[in-house]
Amino acid sequence: MTRMKNRGSLVVISGFSGSGKGSVTKELIRKYGYSLSVSMTTRKPREGEVDGREYHFKTEEDFLKLIDYNGFIEYARYVDHYYGTPRQFVEDELAAGHCVLLEIEVQGAVSIKEQYPDAILIFITAPSAESLKKRLCCRGTEDSSVIEKRMHRAAAEAESIDEYQYIVINDDGKMNECVDKIHSIIEGEACRVSVNHDFVELIQRELNEEQPS
Amino acid sequence: MTRMKNRGSLVVISGFSGSGKGSVTKELIRKYGYSLSVSMTTRKPREGEVDGREYHFKTEEDFLKLIDYNGFIEYARYVDHYYGTPRQFVEDELAAGHCVLLEIEVQGAVSIKEQYPDAILIFITAPSAESLKKRLCCRGTEDSSVIEKRMHRAAAEAESIDEYQYIVINDDGKMNECVDKIHSIIEGEACRVSVNHDFVELIQRELNEEQPS
Repeated sequence: MTRMKNRGSLVVISGFSGSGKGSVTKELIRKYGYSLSVSMTTRKPREGEVDGREYHFKTEEDFLKLIDYNGFIEYARYVDHYYGTPRQFVEDELAAGHCVLLEIEVQGAVSIKEQYPDAILIFITAPSAESLKKRLCCRGTEDSSVIEKRMHRAAAEAESIDEYQYIVINDDGKMNECVDKIHSIIEGEACRVSVNHDFVELIQRELNEEQPS
Repeated sequence: MTRMKNRGSLVVISGFSGSGKGSVTKELIRKYGYSLSVSMTTRKPREGEVDGREYHFKTEEDFLKLIDYNGFIEYARYVDHYYGTPRQFVEDELAAGHCVLLEIEVQGAVSIKEQYPDAILIFITAPSAESLKKRLCCRGTEDSSVIEKRMHRAAAEAESIDEYQYIVINDDGKMNECVDKIHSIIEGEACRVSVNHDFVELIQRELNEEQPS
């Protein structure tokens, strides 16, 4: 039988700091069995971090070698360390028909959309600027300069929303709604005519062959 | 609280004859509470048809008057009769935040997409040309000229798939999968950044106002 879209979808999850995107991503994996792309980094593991779970921890030498081999679909240097998304895992999973989630920043998201035009870019937000401010300001005892830095960052993140195709609200106590919405987005995208060209063309050809000449 | 997309979505359902699109539409309304736009026609009701359920039955005079008043979002004349989608009902439902389903042919679908760029166009198909042929040919005792006409029509319908954004399979005995996929498509589309401009701009403005000048 002809089948629709065999290749998996590449799904980029970004969002405001404090939007809970990490928990949403974890729940998407647990509930719907999506694959998670684990980033590679040259920074040292922090306490409790496990190699291959939070990150693949590598030496700078290994990382640079992988860059030379075109081994990343995106990478960046922050402060003194490299961070990147290894190409092999993503390609293997997509070829096997699995959906791969990437939790990355906007610069990486834009770069991925250029290489994978069918990638699905989703931005996660609090239900309002008001509630986002509360989450950013009232976490504890931080002084005003820390809060100011966070607000500045949030404003910059907000400007990047226009780079994304979808925006989903993660409201307090309603993470499941957010998770299910993202699942719907992924399910819907797999039904796009533009990602099912082979299937559509086959049906068109087969029906045309039936025509009396 | 800021809310996302207040306006409902306009959803166009088309598909091959024999794809079961009528049953799918009915089940979408029953299961998910979508609104159905009932077409207007100048043809006489057939046995069992109820005015306002299958169609709004009108005189040609009334129909032509409504055309003059720009009362249709699309209309066409087939053989000796007019068929059209009344504008008022659709506009009222969308404004009330309801999703409206239209089950129409490809010409109407294209015309609606021009007037409502956010309309969601979905084409329903059998899982393969093979199974579609079976459904079209083996219904009963029709002679070969009837079957030939149907195959010709199916080939023409297949060419129109490229006008749609989504294609969904309605497999025998799996109508529920098809119905749920369409629901996912509608849910996902409501999360598009492009249909949530007001919400995104409000968040951007509010976060920017927090910045020290």
